[in-house]
Amino acid sequence: MADREPVDCIIHAGWVVPVNPAGAVLERHSLVIQGQRILAVLPWRDALRRYRAQRTFRRSRHVLIPGLINAHTHAAMTLFRGFADDLPLTQWLRDRIWPAEQRVIGRRFARDGVRLAIAEMLRGGITCFSDMYYLPTVTADEACAAGVRAMIGIRVLDTALGFGATPEDTLEGGLSLADRCQREPLLHCSLAPYAPEALSDHVLGQLRRLSSDHRLRVHSHVHETRGDIAQAQRREGRRPLAQLQAAGLLNGNLVAVHMNHLTAAERQTVARAGLHVVHCPRSNLKLASGFCPVTELLAEGVNVALGTDGAASNNSLDLLGEMRTAALLAKGLSGDPTAVSAGTALRMATLNGARALGLDTEIGSLEAGKQADCVAINLDRLQAVPLHHVLPQLVYATQREQVSDVWVAGHQLLNRGRLTTLDGVSVLRQTRRWQRRLAQPSWFDAIRHWLLK
Amino acid sequence: MADREPVDCIIHAGWVVPVNPAGAVLERHSLVIQGQRILAVLPWRDALRRYRAQRTFRRSRHVLIPGLINAHTHAAMTLFRGFADDLPLTQWLRDRIWPAEQRVIGRRFARDGVRLAIAEMLRGGITCFSDMYYLPTVTADEACAAGVRAMIGIRVLDTALGFGATPEDTLEGGLSLADRCQREPLLHCSLAPYAPEALSDHVLGQLRRLSSDHRLRVHSHVHETRGDIAQAQRREGRRPLAQLQAAGLLNGNLVAVHMNHLTAAERQTVARAGLHVVHCPRSNLKLASGFCPVTELLAEGVNVALGTDGAASNNSLDLLGEMRTAALLAKGLSGDPTAVSAGTALRMATLNGARALGLDTEIGSLEAGKQADCVAINLDRLQAVPLHHVLPQLVYATQREQVSDVWVAGHQLLNRGRLTTLDGVSVLRQTRRWQRRLAQPSWFDAIRHWLLK
Repeated sequence: MADREPVDCIIHAGWVVPVNPAGAVLERHSLVIQGQRILAVLPWRDALRRYRAQRTFRRSRHVLIPGLINAHTHAAMTLFRGFADDLPLTQWLRDRIWPAEQRVIGRRFARDGVRLAIAEMLRGGITCFSDMYYLPTVTADEACAAGVRAMIGIRVLDTALGFGATPEDTLEGGLSLADRCQREPLLHCSLAPYAPEALSDHVLGQLRRLSSDHRLRVHSHVHETRGDIAQAQRREGRRPLAQLQAAGLLNGNLVAVHMNHLTAAERQTVARAGLHVVHCPRSNLKLASGFCPVTELLAEGVNVALGTDGAASNNSLDLLGEMRTAALLAKGLSGDPTAVSAGTALRMATLNGARALGLDTEIGSLEAGKQADCVAINLDRLQAVPLHHVLPQLVYATQREQVSDVWVAGHQLLNRGRLTTLDGVSVLRQTRRWQRRLAQPSWFDAIRHWLLK
Repeated sequence: MADREPVDCIIHAGWVVPVNPAGAVLERHSLVIQGQRILAVLPWRDALRRYRAQRTFRRSRHVLIPGLINAHTHAAMTLFRGFADDLPLTQWLRDRIWPAEQRVIGRRFARDGVRLAIAEMLRGGITCFSDMYYLPTVTADEACAAGVRAMIGIRVLDTALGFGATPEDTLEGGLSLADRCQREPLLHCSLAPYAPEALSDHVLGQLRRLSSDHRLRVHSHVHETRGDIAQAQRREGRRPLAQLQAAGLLNGNLVAVHMNHLTAAERQTVARAGLHVVHCPRSNLKLASGFCPVTELLAEGVNVALGTDGAASNNSLDLLGEMRTAALLAKGLSGDPTAVSAGTALRMATLNGARALGLDTEIGSLEAGKQADCVAINLDRLQAVPLHHVLPQLVYATQREQVSDVWVAGHQLLNRGRLTTLDGVSVLRQTRRWQRRLAQPSWFDAIRHWLLK
């Protein structure tokens, strides 16, 4: 026994679902972690024979899966959860969300909103998120402090939208963030235009150059609603995808979010160009934005990942829930109960997410050499028994509360349901403060109301 | 203070959502219980001034809602949760579920399955369920023992299906159950044909007579899949709804489950006839059975309730989840984000369920004089803050684990997450036993396989 190799950590799990190879369920397997990385995935008995760990976790009633990857969110908006529901999209955005944003957006709002989002995401097994919102440097700070992996979107806006800075300013500020992300092991950054139809061809051209020069993902809403497309057709005389194509942006660097309205020809273009699609099923349903043709895109070989979108339109950052909704919705819409199987849904929430972010050599599956981003889920609960098959149970009968432990790059961020890097009580307290502030009508609102009446 | 009226129980809740009147949210209100019934719903301070309770519950961070009513399930099938997923409907039913049923169905299977179902339902805030399955007397026994309210379906099958007994036998046995249900305060019973297309006109005529003579609900799957309708058209030359109409069964006693394929004319017939519809959104999505036109039915004044269906096809008995899915799906399908608002979804899961079962004078809302069936849900969780509006938060951001307490007829069946009438540990143990039994190939299966190969 003396010659066992010393390692940092071993997790003995009832089951390991590595995601790659697809469909594999390894019973009574252990994950061995050295530093930030996975050293081995092997049966309990071999792990015990070969390794001596500083920390050992026994999770025999748990399944260990790769950390979930939330490929599209607006983390700070979590403070707007439930702020305005059951409204038409434009009324929701223009009359409720945008005025409220103008009233409260600032460093403290972003900090507290992102903290709440990260706390919720970690407790639900999300180890990596791709964000797009105001004040991305604050989001980066909070992700670093919490130890979670993140791709921070550098906002790219056209001056026409009246946000003050020129697109050049935005990009320059953003590129200093990109430099910083290169130094931080858990941070990555992307260029994040809100949507192509909001940008001039000039800015789109700059985006293309920056994306290819700096090898950055372009993270954008694309074809979310019929209205978006109609607006582009009025303004540009073509659909947003055509606009992106003309600007040279339809390629493997593009992460196109939503994609609810696609013609058959557009689907083929998407498949040929190799861009990535992020499906946000609950947000799309709630805002009645349309349906992403997931089954068709997958059949054509397109990489489809999953996102929660912001909590203002969802209202949860719950990727287990999105997995289930994605699987159910695809079956319902296609009329085929074999569409988006449990295994496919889990892959969308893990390895496909990693591919979308260009991180699939590092995360997205439990394989030796990859980063140790993983999640233990307790299957020994009344709502998750009997356990006939692990993979479908995970997707169709598992809830967030069953997530017991989360590791990112070998660090444990959730320990039997308790956050280790964030103080849940203080997050709750700060959130209640913002709740009160958002409930109060401000002078700004009063004046706006007076001017508009 | 000496002249305060003595009562059995007071629950001081942060918020009470009585469901009737629609949309009401009462802040800092108390529910006063005397015996099995609600004596009053009033502000904290008035409750403290007027009543002296034997038991007091302080739930200041909780919302109190009427007990959820699961208007369609097959409780014992919970042991088949995850037994066969991602399969076409006929393959799922004929190759997996039916052979397994033939292998294991018996009193012990029904007992253990129903116990698991009731445990799961109570922990998720379901206080009443309407069941349809083998061995209804066992279901009745278990509901009584657990103290939960139930409407037990008396199975009505045509002899052609080969289940041994004549329909007359079935009904006679069933009517003795009906007699018993009249004596048990928490039990009710219904006539439960599997589906009209499985029955002869003779049996349907008997059903109509029994239903009207004994004032019993008729609980049946109707228009679940296109295949069901096609089968009826081949056999009977008409659609199942027309068959029900010809038999005189289209009336306020009919509880029609699924109703996924309805023409505009059929919708109007349904509205005129005043029958009740049970929508099972997750089951219909998972089996790709079709879409119940909920928005249209509600607009035409039809009473639409919610059901989980059996855990074999769902895979959860989670009515909070069904509420959310029903609201999201209606928005997505209608293209209207105001369709099925949070308030409507909650009403479907409570008062509409009570109406469907003919129990709306007794349950479904928190009003003085009604039975004290209610549920406390903790809103002070990371995934449910900030709290801008209680009703949408309940539907769009609340999970089962937040259910802390459940009362049925004034008895507390869940106390801060702990079941009081069921032993969760023993339910888990029994369930694992069935899990092993179902996993073993039996002689029956071996012979069947040999005969069919």
